[in-house]
This record gives sequence, C-alpha cells and structure tokens, in this order.
Amino acid sequence: MQEYIEKAKVLVEALPYIKEFSGKIVVIKYGGSAMVDERIKASVIQDIVLMKLVGLKPVIVHGGGKEISAMLSKIGKESLFVNGLRVTDLETAEVAEMVLSGKVNKDIVQLIQNHDLDAVGISGKDAKTLKVSKKEIDGYDVGYVGDIDKVNTGLIETLLNHDFIPVIAPVGTDDQGDTYNINADYAASAIAGALSAEKLIFLTDVEGILRDVKDSASLISRIPVQDVPKLIDEDIISGGMIPKAECCAWGIKQGVKRVHILDGRLEHSVLLEVFTKKGIGTMFLS
Amino acid sequence: MQEYIEKAKVLVEALPYIKEFSGKIVVIKYGGSAMVDERIKASVIQDIVLMKLVGLKPVIVHGGGKEISAMLSKIGKESLFVNGLRVTDLETAEVAEMVLSGKVNKDIVQLIQNHDLDAVGISGKDAKTLKVSKKEIDGYDVGYVGDIDKVNTGLIETLLNHDFIPVIAPVGTDDQGDTYNINADYAASAIAGALSAEKLIFLTDVEGILRDVKDSASLISRIPVQDVPKLIDEDIISGGMIPKAECCAWGIKQGVKRVHILDGRLEHSVLLEVFTKKGIGTMFLS
Amino acid sequence: MQEYIEKAKVLVEALPYIKEFSGKIVVIKYGGSAMVDERIKASVIQDIVLMKLVGLKPVIVHGGGKEISAMLSKIGKESLFVNGLRVTDLETAEVAEMVLSGKVNKDIVQLIQNHDLDAVGISGKDAKTLKVSKKEIDGYDVGYVGDIDKVNTGLIETLLNHDFIPVIAPVGTDDQGDTYNINADYAASAIAGALSAEKLIFLTDVEGILRDVKDSASLISRIPVQDVPKLIDEDIISGGMIPKAECCAWGIKQGVKRVHILDGRLEHSVLLEVFTKKGIGTMFLS
Amino acid sequence: MQEYIEKAKVLVEALPYIKEFSGKIVVIKYGGSAMVDERIKASVIQDIVLMKLVGLKPVIVHGGGKEISAMLSKIGKESLFVNGLRVTDLETAEVAEMVLSGKVNKDIVQLIQNHDLDAVGISGKDAKTLKVSKKEIDGYDVGYVGDIDKVNTGLIETLLNHDFIPVIAPVGTDDQGDTYNINADYAASAIAGALSAEKLIFLTDVEGILRDVKDSASLISRIPVQDVPKLIDEDIISGGMIPKAECCAWGIKQGVKRVHILDGRLEHSVLLEVFTKKGIGTMFLS
Amino acid sequence: MQEYIEKAKVLVEALPYIKEFSGKIVVIKYGGSAMVDERIKASVIQDIVLMKLVGLKPVIVHGGGKEISAMLSKIGKESLFVNGLRVTDLETAEVAEMVLSGKVNKDIVQLIQNHDLDAVGISGKDAKTLKVSKKEIDGYDVGYVGDIDKVNTGLIETLLNHDFIPVIAPVGTDDQGDTYNINADYAASAIAGALSAEKLIFLTDVEGILRDVKDSASLISRIPVQDVPKLIDEDIISGGMIPKAECCAWGIKQGVKRVHILDGRLEHSVLLEVFTKKGIGTMFLS
Amino acid sequence: MQEYIEKAKVLVEALPYIKEFSGKIVVIKYGGSAMVDERIKASVIQDIVLMKLVGLKPVIVHGGGKEISAMLSKIGKESLFVNGLRVTDLETAEVAEMVLSGKVNKDIVQLIQNHDLDAVGISGKDAKTLKVSKKEIDGYDVGYVGDIDKVNTGLIETLLNHDFIPVIAPVGTDDQGDTYNINADYAASAIAGALSAEKLIFLTDVEGILRDVKDSASLISRIPVQDVPKLIDEDIISGGMIPKAECCAWGIKQGVKRVHILDGRLEHSVLLEVFTKKGIGTMFLS
Repeated sequence: MQEYIEKAKVLVEALPYIKEFSGKIVVIKYGGSAMVDERIKASVIQDIVLMKLVGLKPVIVHGGGKEISAMLSKIGKESLFVNGLRVTDLETAEVAEMVLSGKVNKDIVQLIQNHDLDAVGISGKDAKTLKVSKKEIDGYDVGYVGDIDKVNTGLIETLLNHDFIPVIAPVGTDDQGDTYNINADYAASAIAGALSAEKLIFLTDVEGILRDVKDSASLISRIPVQDVPKLIDEDIISGGMIPKAECCAWGIKQGVKRVHILDGRLEHSVLLEVFTKKGIGTMFLS
Repeated sequence: MQEYIEKAKVLVEALPYIKEFSGKIVVIKYGGSAMVDERIKASVIQDIVLMKLVGLKPVIVHGGGKEISAMLSKIGKESLFVNGLRVTDLETAEVAEMVLSGKVNKDIVQLIQNHDLDAVGISGKDAKTLKVSKKEIDGYDVGYVGDIDKVNTGLIETLLNHDFIPVIAPVGTDDQGDTYNINADYAASAIAGALSAEKLIFLTDVEGILRDVKDSASLISRIPVQDVPKLIDEDIISGGMIPKAECCAWGIKQGVKRVHILDGRLEHSVLLEVFTKKGIGTMFLS
Repeated sequence: MQEYIEKAKVLVEALPYIKEFSGKIVVIKYGGSAMVDERIKASVIQDIVLMKLVGLKPVIVHGGGKEISAMLSKIGKESLFVNGLRVTDLETAEVAEMVLSGKVNKDIVQLIQNHDLDAVGISGKDAKTLKVSKKEIDGYDVGYVGDIDKVNTGLIETLLNHDFIPVIAPVGTDDQGDTYNINADYAASAIAGALSAEKLIFLTDVEGILRDVKDSASLISRIPVQDVPKLIDEDIISGGMIPKAECCAWGIKQGVKRVHILDGRLEHSVLLEVFTKKGIGTMFLS
Repeated sequence: MQEYIEKAKVLVEALPYIKEFSGKIVVIKYGGSAMVDERIKASVIQDIVLMKLVGLKPVIVHGGGKEISAMLSKIGKESLFVNGLRVTDLETAEVAEMVLSGKVNKDIVQLIQNHDLDAVGISGKDAKTLKVSKKEIDGYDVGYVGDIDKVNTGLIETLLNHDFIPVIAPVGTDDQGDTYNINADYAASAIAGALSAEKLIFLTDVEGILRDVKDSASLISRIPVQDVPKLIDEDIISGGMIPKAECCAWGIKQGVKRVHILDGRLEHSVLLEVFTKKGIGTMFLS
Repeated sequence: MQEYIEKAKVLVEALPYIKEFSGKIVVIKYGGSAMVDERIKASVIQDIVLMKLVGLKPVIVHGGGKEISAMLSKIGKESLFVNGLRVTDLETAEVAEMVLSGKVNKDIVQLIQNHDLDAVGISGKDAKTLKVSKKEIDGYDVGYVGDIDKVNTGLIETLLNHDFIPVIAPVGTDDQGDTYNINADYAASAIAGALSAEKLIFLTDVEGILRDVKDSASLISRIPVQDVPKLIDEDIISGGMIPKAECCAWGIKQGVKRVHILDGRLEHSVLLEVFTKKGIGTMFLS
Repeated sequence: MQEYIEKAKVLVEALPYIKEFSGKIVVIKYGGSAMVDERIKASVIQDIVLMKLVGLKPVIVHGGGKEISAMLSKIGKESLFVNGLRVTDLETAEVAEMVLSGKVNKDIVQLIQNHDLDAVGISGKDAKTLKVSKKEIDGYDVGYVGDIDKVNTGLIETLLNHDFIPVIAPVGTDDQGDTYNINADYAASAIAGALSAEKLIFLTDVEGILRDVKDSASLISRIPVQDVPKLIDEDIISGGMIPKAECCAWGIKQGVKRVHILDGRLEHSVLLEVFTKKGIGTMFLS
C-alpha cells in the first residue's frame, strides 16, 4: 500500500514537467564517461527514449575523442593537442570524420533503435547542416578545426517533424566543400541555439559546478550567465570547466532557454533533471 | 541518493505505458464515493489531468443519483425505485436533467479547469449525442428511463480533436425530442464502445471482484468476458455487482479493449492502474 | 400567377442580404416574451435555423430570470432584487446555474434539434469561455453577480467551425473557480464583441425605440451610438430601456457591426430584420 | 403587417430547399426565348446569381442557333438542316464555334458579372472537356456534328471549387483535334450526368408537358423516365418535344437526380422551381 | 560517339536554366508571322509545351489583327486605322471579340492540346481578368479600344495552380460592362507585370534591336530600360519598333524581370533563348 | 545557325523523357571505376544533379570495396574473399561500416552539395531502413554479410518528399541489433523494388551485355528478364556478369520498371540513357 502511495507521488510530481516540456526540443551533448560505461550508456539512452515517448523532441550531439585517438593510433598516427584542440591535418580530419560519422554516430543510432524508436544519424555535412570556416587562433595553426558560421536546421526539423530522433556528428564543411572537425560542446550549443531549444544538457564527469570541489554539498544549482565571469575570477569555475561553462553561457545567448551540466555518471540523470522538482546538477539561465 | 534511484525506477516503469496509450481514448465512469469524498475527488481529477497531459484522451461520464434525490426531496418529491431503477415521471426527469447537466456536470468541469486544462460539459442531448428510446421492462413502467439506440460521436470527437476534455451527463432524447434519464454505467459503456476506447474504467466502492468477499488477497485480476456467466452462477459475482459486471462485458462486446473495475476509494487508483506494471482492481477483456 | 410573381419578388429581395451575411456571425440574445409564448418561440427557433441553413453563423445567448425565480420559490427561497440585479447568495447562484445550464439551455438545444440541425448547449464556465470578477457596486453587495473580464472564444469558434449552433448560458467563473451569474444582455454584448459579430439582436417586448411611446409610427430606425446619451437626456430612452440601450452602445464599442432591438412578439422578426430591405425595430450603429 | 407575414411565409417556405440543395450542382441549359427577351434574360441571370449566392453551384450550358444562322447569313452562307440537325461543313463549323465561344458565351459571362460574381466562359474544347466523335446517322452526312464520348470534368470542377460560375459552349474535339458542333440539350445532359448534378433544368418555350396542349391545367408535374416511351406512343409527347424528352430521360440515366422542363418565358422560373414547394413545369425522375 | 558527347553537352548546358526557371511564370506574346507560318507555329507550340513539361509556367497572350480584318472584310466592313490603332465601333468590337475569343484563342488551345497537355482559352472578360477604361487620345476617338486599369489574376493563378496552360485573348470590360479591344503587346505586358513574371517574350518578325538594321551582327543583346529613350533619339529604335520597345520598358516597370524581343521566324527561338547560355534576340532589363 | 538547329534538336528530343519521368524515382548503384576516375565521377554527379533539377527523384546506393580493403590494410588486416564475398568478421564489419557510412557516403554527399543541392547520407541502419538476417551459404561462413528481409522506406520517402537526395550506404541490422555488410548491387535492387522505382541503373565497367565480348556492335539493347537464364546457358552472360544480371532480373521481379547496365566509363552515360531516344547500354525489363 505504501508502495502504491510512493509510486503515485512520483507520477504526480512529474506531471507539471511533462506538460511544460511537451513538444519542446531538448538537445543532449553526449560524450565522456557517459559514452563509455555500459550501464550508464543504457540509462542515458533509456532517458532519451522516455523523453521522446512522452512528447519531447530529443536531439543528440555526440563527441568521440577517445575513439578518434584509438583509430589514429591503430593506423600509427599520433594525436597532437594544442590548448586542448586536436591538431587536425588532412589525414586526421578524414579519420575523425570516419570515426564520428561512421562509427560513434551509428552506434548511438542502434542503441536507440533497440528500444523500437527510429533514429537517424547525420553529420553536420548532410544537407549543409553545419557551415563552418577555419578556426583562427593566434600564433599557431590547428588545421581542419572549424568555427560554425551557420546552422541550417532544415534537415533536423524535417526529421523531428517525422518523429525521427536526430543523432548528429560534429563535422562540417566550408564554402569550398572542405571538411572540418568541430568541438562537440560548441556544436551542441550552436545547434540548440538555432533550434531555440528548451534545454541543452551536457553530460559530464562532474556533479556540476561546486563552490568547494571537495564538497558535493557545495553544488551551485542555478547560475545566471552574467555571473560566469565572476565565478571564473573567483576560481570556482576553473581548468577544463572554463570552456564548458563558456559554452553554456554562449548557448543561453544563442537562444536556448536553460543549459544544464549534469553528472553523466549518475544513472537516469537526464530523467531526474527533467521530470523532478528539485532537478540535479547546475543550471545556467539568462 | 536512494530516493533518486526510486524515483527513476517509477518513471522508467511508467515508460512503456505512456508509449502504449498515447493518443488513445480512456472513458472514466465517475460516480459513487469517488464523487463524494473531497480528497478522493481531488485525486481522481488529478489523474484525469495527468492522463491528458501525457497524451491520452480522457472522456468523463458521470452519475449523480444522490444529488438528484437531494434536489427532489428539497422540492418535496419522494424518490421511488423499482428493481434499482428510479421511477421517472416527467417532473422527475426534468429535475434529474437539471441536476445532472446543470450542477454535477459543471462542477466536474470546474474541478478539471482548476488545473488549467479546458473541459467542456455536455449532455447526451447536445448534438444528439445519445439517441434513446423508452426502456421496456416486463410488468411495470419506470417512465422516462432510456435505452440507447445510437451514440453520435461527432461532438465528442470534435472536442477531443481540439484538446478539450469532454464531461458527459447521462441524458438523452428520443425521436420525438422527449428527454430521458440513462443509467450512467450503461451510458459509459455505450460511449466507450462507440469511440472504440482503449479503456473503460469504473470507479466503484469495492476493490474489484473478490473470490472471497472478506479476503482482499482473493482479488481476481483478469476476467475474460466469457467467464462472467459462470462467476455469476458460482455467486462470486453477486448482488449489485451483477449489473456492473454485465455492463463491463457489454462494453467489451461494443468494441472497448479493456474494462476495469477499480476501487475509487484508493487515491490515484486510475493512475496506478494505467501507468504501473501490476495494475490494480479487476480487468475484463475478450 | 400573381402569387408566383410575389414569391419571386421576396426571394429576389432577400438575395443581397444572403450574399452580404454569408459566413457572418449573428448573436441573438433570446429572452423575455419570446421565450414564453409557444408560437413566438417556434418562430424564433425557425428563424435561427433558416439563418444557419443559408450560411450565417447564429450564436444564441439566453436568459432565464423567470425560470430561476420559479425554482427558487419551489424550494422556498425568495428572490430579492436591488436596482434590477438579483441578490445572489451561494445557494441562489447554484440554483441559477442549474436552471440556466441544465434546463433553459438544454430546452433551447432541443428545440433547434427538432429541425434536424445540431446544437450544443454550453455555459460560460465550459472551456473558461466567460472569465469574470465580482461586480462591484457602490453601497451594497449583490453577491455572486459577475463582471466579464475576458471572453475566451476558442470553444465557440470550434463549435461554429464544425457547424454546431452554440447555445450559451450566462454563467462564468472567476480566478478562484467560483461561479457567478451574469446579466444575459451584457453577456451577449461581450460575446458578440469578442467574436466581431456582424449583428447582435436583442429580442424584446417592445417594437424598438419610439419617440412617442404611444405611437408606433414614431419608431427610430437607426441610432448612431453617440446619440444614445442625448436620447436618454431627452427621456426618449427611459426606464428599463436605459440599460438595454447602453448594452447596445457597448456592443458597438466592443466591435459588433450592428446591434438591433427587435419586437420579439412579432413572428419571424429576426428573419424580417435580416433578409428584407426595410428591416424592422431599431438599429444601433457607430 | 400583412406584408411582413407574407414575406416571412415565402422565406420560411424556401428554407428546406436551400438546405437540401446547398453545395449541389445545378446545370441550366440556357437557350431559346429565354436568351432573346431582355426582361426574361435578366431574370434568368438573376436566378443563377441567387442560386450561387445561397450556396448552390450553377453551371450554364448554352445554345446559340439563331446567332449562328445570323452570322452565316451575314457572310452569305445559307443554313441547311436535315432532321433538325444543322449540316455543318468546315466553314460552318468554324463560324459556329466562333459565334458560340466568342460571342454568345462571353455575353452570358458578362451578364452574370454585372451582378459582381465571377463567371468563366469555356468551350468543350478547353482542357478537352468534351471529347467527341463524328455523329453517325444512317443515310446522310451532317458533317462536323459530334457525339460525346467522354466529359472530362477536371476544368469545370476546378472552376466550381474556386467559386467561379462556368459557362460552357457546346463545342468539342475528336481524337484528331478536329472541331465539332454539339447539340446543346445533349451536351447539357452529358455534362450534368458526368458531374452527378442534382438538377438539370431546360429553359424552353412551353409550360412543360401538357396532356392537352391547349389546356395549361393539364400539365404533368412528374414523369418517371420509364413512362416516356408510352407518352410518346400516346402522342402526349410529340414533335420537337420528343428529342427534348429523350434528352431528359437520358440525363436521368447518366446520373442526374432530377431533370426539369420549365417555361423560360415566365420570369424567375428557375427560382420558383428550385425554392418553392409546388415547383413549376415538368420534372423527370427515375 | 562524338554525337553522344555533343548531346550530353547541350543537356548539361541547359541544366542551370531549368533549375533557375523552375516554377517561374513566362508570358509569351504570340502574334505576327509566328502565328501564320505552319512550321514556325508548330515549333512555338512545341517550345511552350517543353517549358511546361520541365516545370515552367507558360502563359500565352495572343493577337489576331489579320484574322479580325479578314472577318470584317467577309461581312463587308472596312478596317480603319488611326496612328496604328484600329478604329473600333460597336460592330467592329463585336467581330473582334468573336474572332479573338472564339477562333484564334481556341485554335491555339487546340494546338497545345495536340501535345496532350491541357490548355484553357479565356478572354480578359472572364472573371474580370482585364478591367479597362476607354483609351483617351488627343484629337480623335478610336472607339472601343481599352486602357487597362487593373489585372485580376485570380483566374489565371487558379489555372496555373491546377496545371492548365492559360491562353488569353486581349479583350476587356469597363465598369459599365462594355467590351473593349486591347492592344495585345500592351495586354501581355500588363498581365506579365501583374503576375510578377520571370520573363515576357515578344515573338516578332525581326531578329531583335540592331544598331545597323542591315547587319545582323549589330544586334544589341541587352538593353537596360533607362537606355530606351536614348536609343529612340539615336534612331536605333525607330518606326514600329518604338511602341514595341516602350511596351518592353513598361513591362519591366510593372515588375517583370526580363523582357525579350525574339525573332519569331527562327524555329525554337523561345527554347534557345530560355535554355542556352548565349540566348538570342534582345533582352530588356532594369 | 546550324549550331542553334542542333541544340534545339537535342532539347526537343529530350522533351518526352522529361515529361515521362517527372516525379519518378531513379535508383543509381554507384561504384567501380565510376567512383575512382575524377572526370567520370564529376560527370556522374552532374547527371544526378540534372535529373533532380528537371523533376526526377534520384536515390544513390553506393559500394566501396576498394576503400574498405585500403583501410583494412592500413590497420594491418588482410581481406579474405570466398566466392566473391568478403569474409566479414566483427572487426572487418566495423571497419567496413565506418568506411562506407563515414567516408564514401559523406564524400558523395559533398560532391552533390558542391552543386548547391542538399543531399543526406544515411546507412541502412538509420531508421531501420535495411533489416537483414545472416546470409546462409552452404559449406562455409562468411560472417557478418546480410540478406535483406525488409526495406523500411519511411526515411527515404521523407527525404525525397522534402527534396533531399538520399545517399545510402549498404549496411543493415538484424533483429538483435547486430551490424551487417550488404552487397551493394543487391541492396540497390531491394531498395529500388521497395520504392517501386521507375529505373535502377548500374554503373559498371562494361558497355553492357555483348553477344561477342570483343565486338561493341554486338551490344544487346533490351533483355526481357525471362531470357536471362538462357543467356547464361549460352555463355553470353558469364563470369562476374552473372550475379550482376541476376540482380537486374531480381530488381524487375521486385517491382522496378526498367533496370539498366551502363558503361560508367562513358561521360554522362546516365543522362544519355535517360534523356535520349536510343538510350545506351543494356536494359532489362519484364
């Protein structure tokens, strides 16, 4: 009997969120640990499937750095990074595209389809979804790494309107038709912005932004984007979290309503964030 | 943390049902205790609202026997029953219509609307939704009590297609334009059948059909309709439960997929039946 | 032969009006004598049916003061009026709603349906059609009598688009979900305004506005709304006709094109007003 | 006052017919006296306009024998008839087409348009509306006179769906692209049949079929098509009325619901037939 | 083999033009020699058919001066011209309309239909496509010759949307319903402008505008409309070419994108102009 | 001048084919030399673009055997073939999918997009387009090589309806979600059949089926599919051409109207086949 009461309580709590988000687009940046641990992987996919079933429109943007490095090493080519960016010569760009569009992308498609929904894996090259130009960085040349000039949302919207779940590899082309690798966090922000997404969710390997990195209880639940520079100054946002947080802030500026940093290591973190009152992780908003 | 895990489990369990019933019509016969106890009333309404929010199409058919008797006594007229049917002279028919269509019906509409969804209260008279003829009973005349000849579903479907929740009072008209009272269980079965509803739910004051009426553990979860006569013979279905069970069986024959007898005294019983694996109460099926 | 010529003449005269009003909304405030005399009742209903058949979109808003008083007296409660407004305590409000929505409303629905068209009886409560707040009057409290804050036309428009004739009881709700009685003339004006109706027709017990109340020949055919105050000053509009005339003027300001005061005692007065060159009664216009 | 009552009576009488024929196609064969007398011409056109305004879909098929003869005589060519059919050599066919499609047709279009509705004049040649083959008659050759093989209704239906009134000249083409003259009565029957018209109306110079040609009171109001041969045998249908009556019977067989022979000399005969209880003229039905 | 290469080259060259003009409206003014020589006639019609087949929307506006003169002489009436305009009394206007709408128009319809596409011949009178008023010329009266006040494009667009090829006779009506003859070049410009046509093509008896009328090589390929007055001043555009060139310039001002003067004597001139890189004739542009 | 005449002739010849194939689906199996030689590659892509531009619906199915072998060798894995089928262990299947879906597929997408049309690269895995089961071959096991059980055309049709050009990699999944390699000729036949394609074109390295392999003049232009077994018996179809010819015959049986074997080494061979009277290569038909 108590079990019935508990179950009913959870369902009743989820109610206003299902209503609020019905028909809304949620972009999930899927990468890191959440893409490696099999149990977590299963729970992320299940969350995406659930969101779709109750009427939301999930869009997946994935990374694949580890898989690219593994394939490069398989063909005897070393991975070189400058300031966190992979130096991408023509051969690296080709391998990266192949691994992202032909392997990681299709694996995610398949995992979703095992739940009997239809997914479609595309890259930013298809239907010129991601138009880029060469990333300009002072002092050195990272090669075929792209800055996004325009997101053509026609194909993504067609897929959403026909009830397919789009899975997108962060690859784009410039005006000359050359192929570029794109940072996946950044691609997710640009796509979410162009789609005026309700939510953009980053699955990461941390619990969120913590005031004291050693104390889970110090999690900051909501960060207005104008506070990001101050939090960086105060060293609360630091290291690898800086570009991630800047990406969150940029997403809000592009028109996304809420951007979330979730702990991808927690099972069903997406579900809990979207459908429970308290939510989890850190939310950026304007 | 354990709380998160439990919440996620309930949501994940509800998943296949939300998918299965999306866009499906569920007719709820609302009456008895569930319409009297304020706490239960609130939970039934909340369940209807939740179903609507996650994509089902609820249709309410209500009774109102107690309210009719109360109003009749207020104007100094006694209620007379023969074999469980109210003897309905012209004045009684008028009062019954007024109470059902003008009071009970609009109260339910208002309760739903307090949750910010739009409900529309109609009677079977509107758009000739329920076409009836006088009920013929051997040996006596119960007056303006109707047998349903035809359910015109046009208005109900228009309301469903425009996202209104229809609330229906069991009143109908015959070919001469005379007004008849209709048994609400029977009206709900006819409407559910005409709409090819996925589910028809009777909210009652019992837990369901029990093999041993003193032992909750003896609940029969599923009854194929062809077993109903045998269960009556064996006295397992008896007394006032006989017409109710026959109504369930008739609903299945009219094209409803599943008919349920639920305990309307249990909070969120509709929700628990529809969205949990084990379900509750007794289910009739073909 | 002469008969043929006369018939043809009438049809030919009606021609430009059928053209002009095709697809236009005409709101009829139905009340008073026109709702009591059986012969007149039949002719009003027939006029509504004819308008619908030739392509206009009639909307009925009805009163029911006499029926409310009758029911109140039946349950031993006296009707109390202050400045023409019924003092409406909670019990009175409940009875009023019940009589209006459950009796008068459904009777009109049935009368229309006897002509084989589909009508749908709603109250301002359904789909929150009439949102009200408590009427504030200096010096005394008339209870649950509402001022209209907003007309939500969604349900009425859905019904019109699906070829149903809406019949509306003047009952509304406030933000707390409480039920209020509304003056029917005023409700008709608000609804006609919100629908940008072509015409709003008041069926009354007078021929129209007469310069000399004892002389039919002194009927004023057209009154520009800006002249209303002057006509009141001159005592040409006086007594119970003052609020009616103010309601007409208010309707024009809300966006209705023409507002008419017709003699509801004359058979087919609506038809004659709408489809003949000379028209009848008094027309208010901007 | 009496005038009001009479007017209302006519409007009320017309009511069921406006309902019954709304959206239905009525084909009018327009020719003979009705096309010559200016007063009658005006009344026929007005009737067509009224039908259109109240929701029917009129289609005009016209003749033009007199105009063709006049033009032929103007260019010094004699008209030759064999068994009522104009012997049509190539030059005659050209003149006939020119007069029908370029003069009579456009004149009717203009008359309708003077009432502010849009008409479109086409011939059976446009969009291959009338596909014909040479009429085979035993014993002699009447030249370019066509038998209809197929009515392509695409263009007519497009025009009707876009609220244009089609006016059709009885000219067609064969498979070789040659142009043929077609008997207008026969063309009207074929077109009405292909459109499954509700009514086909022949405007003639007689009151209808009379048992005694000298006695108007002997008019036969309804003739089931199977009685036509008997009426011919009995000489009640005789002379020029025989092909006309056969055309009526053939129309019914092609799928027209009612075919009427009206007195085109009576003003507003079409209106009186369509919108009054008694109707006028003779009606053929199956 | 060489043949294959040549064929492929032509098809490949046509590619960007088929793309560029797909779904665009091309108005062809058809008259003069191109309407007389049978071989040329066949090639013009074939070009129109091809354009339609590959997705353009051709609209034909035709003249017919020679045919009108021939018919007038046949009925013994002389043709009188003042400053290149036919003096058009009532009888002449009637004959002109009859010849244009009933003969030339339907002949073109038939020629197109011999290629299995559906054409529809209308005049500017149908659906009030061309609303005109009497042409005012200083010093003399040319009778029923019209200046275009308004092009109602509803009928033409309906026909285009339903895949019919419109063929238009240059006849119009004024507000009184009187019929006027219209200069065909001028009608074509007005129609093309009202339709925002991509191209307006005049088929003429010259190669285009030549600097030296005796030297084909002196053809001017492109003329910005602002240069037209200067070219007239320089006598490069002279004689009958002046009104034609002014019509071209006026078309551009009405909103046509490109206006062309082609040599109607050259087979497939329209095709070559539209689908080859170099084009032919003289093009006017803004 | 002669050049104009020749150009016009080619365009006029192409006319009936553009008409015939408008809106029809043409599946092109793209592989072999046509995918290697840059000049040929450019011409094939241009042909596909032209077909799309003039209203056909091209669908590309590509192979990639050479690219797979090259990548396998790059990671130090040898390619093993049994009876022309690549023995496909799990690692090979992964590399094959990656090369086909992530490299060859996206390269073709890009080549098309360089012409400013939108292409979308998918694999048979996306939206479960190709459902397969393990190919059963007597006597040995070739691993992850699939037989097609079902083609789900939903995604392809969505892309075609939104004007995208689908480019499909021959990879599929079985019921367990395992990934299989599919012979591209066979995948093309299955897809063309499921789409009821008008044409299926195989771009090969031969001119077609020759009676005498050394004599181009002995090309067989049309082969009814029932003749294929006889031609194999007579050794006219032999060696590697046998499975190709059987694939052609199977395509016809699946519902494709015409299947073509073209010489992919000839520039614009697709264009010449589709848009010229004589066609090229060998056509299979029922």
